[in-house]
Amino acid sequence: MRTQVAIIGSGPAGLLLGQLLHLAGIDSVILERRDRAYVLARIRAGVLEQGTVGLIDKVGAGARLQAEGLKHDGFDLLFGGQRHRIALDGATGGGHVTVYGQTEVTRDLMDQRAAQNGRTVFEAKDVALHDFDRARPFVSYLENGVSKRLDCDVIAGCDGYHGVSRASVPESAITSFERIYPFGWLGILADVPPVSHELIYSGGERGFALCSMRSATRSRYYVQCALDQRVEDWSDERFWDELRRRLDPASAEALVTGPSIEKSIAPLRSFVAEPMRFGRLFLAGDAAHIVPPTGAKGLNLAASDVHYLSQALIEFFVERSSAGIDAYSAKALARIWKAERFSWWLTALMHDFPENGGFGQRMQRAELDYLVSSDPAMAALAENYVGLPY
Amino acid sequence: MRTQVAIIGSGPAGLLLGQLLHLAGIDSVILERRDRAYVLARIRAGVLEQGTVGLIDKVGAGARLQAEGLKHDGFDLLFGGQRHRIALDGATGGGHVTVYGQTEVTRDLMDQRAAQNGRTVFEAKDVALHDFDRARPFVSYLENGVSKRLDCDVIAGCDGYHGVSRASVPESAITSFERIYPFGWLGILADVPPVSHELIYSGGERGFALCSMRSATRSRYYVQCALDQRVEDWSDERFWDELRRRLDPASAEALVTGPSIEKSIAPLRSFVAEPMRFGRLFLAGDAAHIVPPTGAKGLNLAASDVHYLSQALIEFFVERSSAGIDAYSAKALARIWKAERFSWWLTALMHDFPENGGFGQRMQRAELDYLVSSDPAMAALAENYVGLPY
Repeated sequence: MRTQVAIIGSGPAGLLLGQLLHLAGIDSVILERRDRAYVLARIRAGVLEQGTVGLIDKVGAGARLQAEGLKHDGFDLLFGGQRHRIALDGATGGGHVTVYGQTEVTRDLMDQRAAQNGRTVFEAKDVALHDFDRARPFVSYLENGVSKRLDCDVIAGCDGYHGVSRASVPESAITSFERIYPFGWLGILADVPPVSHELIYSGGERGFALCSMRSATRSRYYVQCALDQRVEDWSDERFWDELRRRLDPASAEALVTGPSIEKSIAPLRSFVAEPMRFGRLFLAGDAAHIVPPTGAKGLNLAASDVHYLSQALIEFFVERSSAGIDAYSAKALARIWKAERFSWWLTALMHDFPENGGFGQRMQRAELDYLVSSDPAMAALAENYVGLPY
Repeated sequence: MRTQVAIIGSGPAGLLLGQLLHLAGIDSVILERRDRAYVLARIRAGVLEQGTVGLIDKVGAGARLQAEGLKHDGFDLLFGGQRHRIALDGATGGGHVTVYGQTEVTRDLMDQRAAQNGRTVFEAKDVALHDFDRARPFVSYLENGVSKRLDCDVIAGCDGYHGVSRASVPESAITSFERIYPFGWLGILADVPPVSHELIYSGGERGFALCSMRSATRSRYYVQCALDQRVEDWSDERFWDELRRRLDPASAEALVTGPSIEKSIAPLRSFVAEPMRFGRLFLAGDAAHIVPPTGAKGLNLAASDVHYLSQALIEFFVERSSAGIDAYSAKALARIWKAERFSWWLTALMHDFPENGGFGQRMQRAELDYLVSSDPAMAALAENYVGLPY
């Protein structure tokens, strides 16, 4: 089989890249290790920047998002028993975010790819990347136990943190930067109306909590937990009790609880690998960087990477210029580092870090007190939250 | 001897408090451990917030400051070999700072106190605070070897971090918060024209540097140094060489060097003691809190404390109301914590912290890159730098 762009991974990054390339008449094949149902069941983020929504609209996959997505022009910071609203629109000239599950984004993009007869190989096993340091790379894999070969001009590694793409690069060619946080997020999904129509980020001595939602009838809640906690230790009742304790009295009172339909613990990590281009191999999204979920930048960074990469590849294939692919890594990383900083800062601001001691805790509280008292500080938070310009 | 307010310490905090009380017809006596010449020779900060200048003007000691002080409406952040100007005026509605040495502030206030026959006892030894948990406190001390007693209604502890005032309070009554930074500032004063007419805060792998000044012909420069360094190890030549390496090429080229007239190493500390009132004893300035010098908040915080304390004492003595003195500690601390946060943040942003590792260093750089690219982030820096409202 032959294509112009071999895309490794059928998550939102790979799918969006495929559709952006398709718009420009560039052919791609997606190789995905898992089956379609598995990919669709992966529950991830649900807060989209305007740039991300714009890209999904651009490829023509935005109809359901526009109909069902919830536009939010603010959110609440809760600390010291009080909720403080951060307005997104005024400070950013009408900026907002859209709440729409990553699973839905994946489904919409997959449906569109299928309708356009885009080629995707699911359950592609033993994927291996070859000769991406030369002009004619190829990818080998097993399909139903049969060895296959996909010849291509370039490979796009959109296969996440644990994927084969970054792992195919010699270690000596990569510089990585990492911070592991000393806690995790215990999250549940439940078919109950959200406690507030906007998100609530809550900080305090009991630890962080996040009240989020997928729709007017489906809620997503998180509480910061120790890394040694196991999901089995957390009955729904224990979760709801703990969440209530981290809310202000009115919200705790208003909280509607119900049986969880998903419950899991995720660790928090900041990670960046540099560079993002190795000859004819380009990394995008989680394959190159991870942010902690605070502020919901993961999917949005994958989208901005894919925006830069699609432009670079269009220049390469259509205009026969290497300028775009030569600049891709630096261009993407400039925005990534700012989003990494924002995610790290918001994580540090809102979580409990007993190891920071009394002074550190007071700095956290002083920063929160300052933040909600300062128009420029709130505007800086807002411009990062809605997404820095591409 | 008897007075209404016994002020411990003849630094700018004690002197300014004395003059503010004098304006309201409230009598004070200042007890100072050192002699006049020693106090006047102490070289400290030199960047005054508008609020501080306003208080000095209010007590009528601002003539020389207005004539000789240098108004600055911006400063430079230098990193990655480039200078980036932070404008103070636009973002803060005409805000600025005034460069005028703390030694000069002290001199002006002392001269004014002397002209008004305000009582100050220099070289007051063995100062001890008594009965401040009762309505009639007093202070004992030795003057020329003779035991003296100063009866008063209240005691104002303006005697700095190492002073007797905070040390007189039972440890159990104080909660303190502290951060010691793993480096110091090596500073020199030299009669050379400043390299730039505005301050330059420089960060980078070689460590922080600050280009400051006292006048058009007197410069004050600092470089971050390890805590085990000794002044004797730093010849003037070594200092100038190191400073040059931390500047951009044009500034390094333009730097005019000359013999130092003062050279010292100061450690960096963040410290806050809560509360600031113990019965009839009130702490103000360094006696209650220390900031690292980055951002020059130390003297300015002392001034805002004294503003709050003078108002409280005027309410107490003139209006016979305890409301002000009851609210003093909380009111002062709310502003102090924000300034502590700013000083800690600017210190963390600009200094080299090898212990933060690669990720931490990238966060620092990403924050600087973001800062100089964002109007709201620069405005937040500016509003803190010119001083948050009283």
